[in-house]
Parts: sequence; C-alpha cells; structure tokens
Amino acid sequence: MAVYTDVSDENLGEFIAEYELGAVKSCKGITEGIENSNYLLTTEAGTFILTLYEKRVDEADLPFFLGLMDHLAANGIPCPVPIKGRDGRTLRTLCGRPTAIVTFLDGMWPRRVTADHCSELGGAMARMHLAGADFELKRENTLSVEGWRPLLEASISRADEITPDLGNILQTELDDLERNWPRDLPRGIIHADLFPDNVFFQNDRLTGLIDFYFACNDYFAYDLAICLNAWCFEADNSFNITKARRMLSAYRKVREFSDAELIAMPLLARGSALRFLLTRLYDWLHPPENALVTPQVTPKNPLEYLDKLRFHQGLSGPGAYGLD
Amino acid sequence: MAVYTDVSDENLGEFIAEYELGAVKSCKGITEGIENSNYLLTTEAGTFILTLYEKRVDEADLPFFLGLMDHLAANGIPCPVPIKGRDGRTLRTLCGRPTAIVTFLDGMWPRRVTADHCSELGGAMARMHLAGADFELKRENTLSVEGWRPLLEASISRADEITPDLGNILQTELDDLERNWPRDLPRGIIHADLFPDNVFFQNDRLTGLIDFYFACNDYFAYDLAICLNAWCFEADNSFNITKARRMLSAYRKVREFSDAELIAMPLLARGSALRFLLTRLYDWLHPPENALVTPQVTPKNPLEYLDKLRFHQGLSGPGAYGLD
Repeated sequence: MAVYTDVSDENLGEFIAEYELGAVKSCKGITEGIENSNYLLTTEAGTFILTLYEKRVDEADLPFFLGLMDHLAANGIPCPVPIKGRDGRTLRTLCGRPTAIVTFLDGMWPRRVTADHCSELGGAMARMHLAGADFELKRENTLSVEGWRPLLEASISRADEITPDLGNILQTELDDLERNWPRDLPRGIIHADLFPDNVFFQNDRLTGLIDFYFACNDYFAYDLAICLNAWCFEADNSFNITKARRMLSAYRKVREFSDAELIAMPLLARGSALRFLLTRLYDWLHPPENALVTPQVTPKNPLEYLDKLRFHQGLSGPGAYGLD
Repeated sequence: MAVYTDVSDENLGEFIAEYELGAVKSCKGITEGIENSNYLLTTEAGTFILTLYEKRVDEADLPFFLGLMDHLAANGIPCPVPIKGRDGRTLRTLCGRPTAIVTFLDGMWPRRVTADHCSELGGAMARMHLAGADFELKRENTLSVEGWRPLLEASISRADEITPDLGNILQTELDDLERNWPRDLPRGIIHADLFPDNVFFQNDRLTGLIDFYFACNDYFAYDLAICLNAWCFEADNSFNITKARRMLSAYRKVREFSDAELIAMPLLARGSALRFLLTRLYDWLHPPENALVTPQVTPKNPLEYLDKLRFHQGLSGPGAYGLD
C-alpha cells in the first residue's frame, strides 16, 4: 500500500481511546496495499492494522467491507477481523478519513508463486465463496462488464500511446464481451482482487486473505478467472497449466462448479484480463499525485494484461486450464 | 524510509535460519527511513527491524554503525541493538545487500514538536555524547565543512533554478564557513541526523534514538546545531527560542559545554543549515529513480534551509538561542 495520510501521535492517542486496546506503543506506515493508508499499530493489547480509507474507496461501501470481513472470519475464513470500539462500532474517523482497526495476520505473500500456493488458494477461495452465502449485505461489482465502457472511454483517446492499435483492440474486445457475457451463472460474494500480494502463506500453507475492498456480489467463476490471470502466468506471460489445474481442482473439491461455469471460463478470463488492462491503462495515463509514499514510481504496466487477454482469446475451450 | 529491495519469503527463510530467532511470522516493508530498505519483521522470538543497506550507505562504514548502536545500547542509550547470528556476526547478506536485524523500539516520532520534546532530546543527546566516549571505532564526518564544496560544485550550475542568486549565496557562505570553521572544540561521537523522525516518544518521554547511519566523530556542539535547525523552527520557519533554550539547558545539565562551544554555536548552526541545504539541493536536482517505494513524490524543499541559514547569519551572538 501507500501512506497518503500521516497520522500524528496526538491524533492517534485520541482515536485509540475509543477502543479497549490500551495505549499505543508504536505505529508505522507500511508499504502494503495501494488504495488506502495502512499502519502497523502496536498497542498494549497486541498488533493490529490501522487503515485510513482514502478517496478511492467509497465510504458508503465500508459497512459492506467491514461487515464481510467480520462475517467471513466468524465462518472460519482466515481474514482480518475489524475491531469494535467501546461503542460497538468498527468504523470511525481519523485525520478526516474513515478509519478502522483490524486484526493482524501472520504470513507473507508469495513473491514466487508455486503450484502448491495455487492449490491452497483454490481451496481457500471456495471456502470463502461458501462462507459468504448467508452474508446479508450486497454490493454490485462496479468493475464488471457494465463498468468497463466508462473506463475505456476515459482512456481510449490516448490508448495508442501504450502500444499501436490498443484502442481498437480494446473496443472490439469490449463489444464482444458485452454481447456474450453470461447472464445466469452461480453467484455470491467474491473477493475480486485475489492477487498474490493479498494472500499470506507460512511454510506454504495459506494463513490469510486480505484486502477485501473490491469484494462484491458476482459470479463465483469470475473470481476464479481473476486468479487464473493473477496466479497462473509466469514472469514471461506464458501460461502454466499445472498451476491452473491445481487451483481449479482444489477449488472443486470444496465447491463443485457446473458445466456452464467451466464452459464460460475462457470468456470470464478474457473479461478479467480486460478489467485489469483497463484499470491499469487508466492509472498509467492518470498517475496519482497525492501519495506521501507511493507503491512504485510508475504504475503497473497494462500490457501484461494484453498478453493475458490474447492467451484466452486464442483458446478453443476450457481444456487449456488443465481440468480433466 | 523506503523499500528499494523486495525481500522474498524464500530468501528471508534462509536468512533467518542464521539467527536464533525462530521462524518468520511476518515481514512488512515500512515507510520509515530514507537511505535503506526497512522491514518490520516478526518471528517466533519477537519483533525486529530488518534493514537492507542500499548503495547510498558505504558498506565499509557498517561495522562502525552497528558497533556504535551496540556500544550505546550497552551504555544505557535507548537505541536499536543489532542482533547477532549464530556465528556472532551482526552483518550478513540478503538479496545481494549488506543486511542487519536490530531490536524494535516502542514509541512514535513527534509530528508536532513541543518544548517538552526538545528538553527530552537535549538530555538524551548529551547522554549519547558521553556514552560514545569509549567507543573504539572512528568515522570522519564526510558531510562536515570539508565535504560541502564537492556537494556545492555538483549543484551550483543549476542552483539558480531553485531561487534567484542561490548559487552566489551558497558560494559566499561556504567561503566564509571554510575560513572561520572552528578547529578545536570538544569532540566525540555525534548522531549528525537527529531529526524528529529519528527520535521516538511515548507519553512525551523519549523512548528511542534511531537511524545512526550518519553518525561520526565531530564536534558535540555541531550535533546541537543540527538539532537547533531540525527542532526549534516552526512550520513558517520562524525560530522558537523557548524550544532552543529547553534543548540546550537540558543538554547542559548532563554535559556542560564550554564558552568556546557556545560562542561557536551561530557559526555551527549556519554550517548545519548549509549542509542540509546542499544535500537537499543535490537530491532535488538529482532525484532517485530506483525506489520501489519512495518516501515522498518530490524531495524535500531545500529553501526551508535557506531561511534557517539566514536566521543564523543575522545573529550577533548565541544569546538568540535562549541561554542565560
């Protein structure tokens, strides 16, 4: 992440008095996360993550995100648990930002993804999908197919700065996805951003899922499609069918998916590739200016996702993902 | 700080096996520090800071820095203690960088400096100066008066981009300081970078001094002069004589300073202002390009230190610092 808002010791002292966490021992900005300001907070009661939600997160969505983490944790999913203040609330204000404290999770995200990681991920994702079933709040996926055209329109005039003909490629792909996007797959709570840096491991066992700030209601298979793109390509953008097979088969042991979901997978994977291509393109053309600490000097390269999009476009069916 | 080098879980696992610290539980890049990559490391043995020294730190100086922290801590100064590996060494290699693990200190650096903070600082600095007396290693201050001309020469051709006539102002000041720099004040180990973000407090009591990577042998009074600039000016660059008086008088209760040191103070304070003006000017004109996480989008403004320089130039004697 980044630190966009610097929290003073005085402000923090007043804030923490609203909780049963004792006095602050230390509070250090950490470099994880992108959308928000995150601090590693140590108090007399232990270690926590303090998050100040910056403007890229819609404040109206925060009860959904915090409620979801609470619900999933209560149902056995290893994810951060929002801490309640003395008034029972998990959300309050610090330095003018909506702010929450959540529990700290052990583990590190994998810099070098292995097939074992993909297998662990598949099982955890399926358990998360099942655990979300009785969560009472809903949130539409604003970054699914209906959200892509506005994103494209915000960038298309300059898309060819990135690579020749990119604007046309995106236009054609979006037209096709809008026409053919599935309408009736099994759906529920999805994470929608399960990249390796949002999944912690210790000794190759999954210990935590974090960063639920894109979570929403959408097709379960779309979450899998996002992870096919985020976990199963190598650094040279070649596809690793073993990783895909391990992820999908571990998932299927916990939650069986239908033929319709499997058949839709290449299209969903194209959609997921287009979604990250479009947001990265937007960020590339509109870099943020207000971070005290930016996660990287330059935004992520959108072209990684153009390669991934082309891989899925070239498939004749879901067999390329390694399922029997 | 910044994170310039991303540490993988595999590399860290091998590295930590050289210590008696148990297994890694988590490791998160933190935003403190500027010169190096710093991680907050949690193992089965507790919480530590993992530092990878980047190229701005001369590897040959590391035994001095690590030995000094060990020495000062053993003499009651609240500073990080380097952790020895199974082989007794505190310095080894991680991801191709010289790397050390030091103890974690509670406390937060003060975003809003008060006169009480300045008083705490003065006492701690004097105790540090005394505690360094029998430290056996030496390190010349490469950023004292002999080091300023090369810095000026690296920036003077473009100095007027920052403000009109800046090149001439710096040239004249440096000529004067070189002629008049004192030659025989009491000297020993100084920190040389005791800015507020290197000093931790808890409930307004000083709990830690960190970041000894500019420490060297120089005039004790020069350390005070650096802190006059770093702690006793307000946000509008006006000088707060109360803060200066509290800092100097708390210092003097622990280590009395001579008339010669006091009389030299305005000149030393001009020198310290010039030193930070020159390094900030250099960084402004030569911004780094390789940080994964940069502490700020733009380097610190050099002109803050031009204002401070002018304040000290205008003084008729050390009375302006509030001593009786």
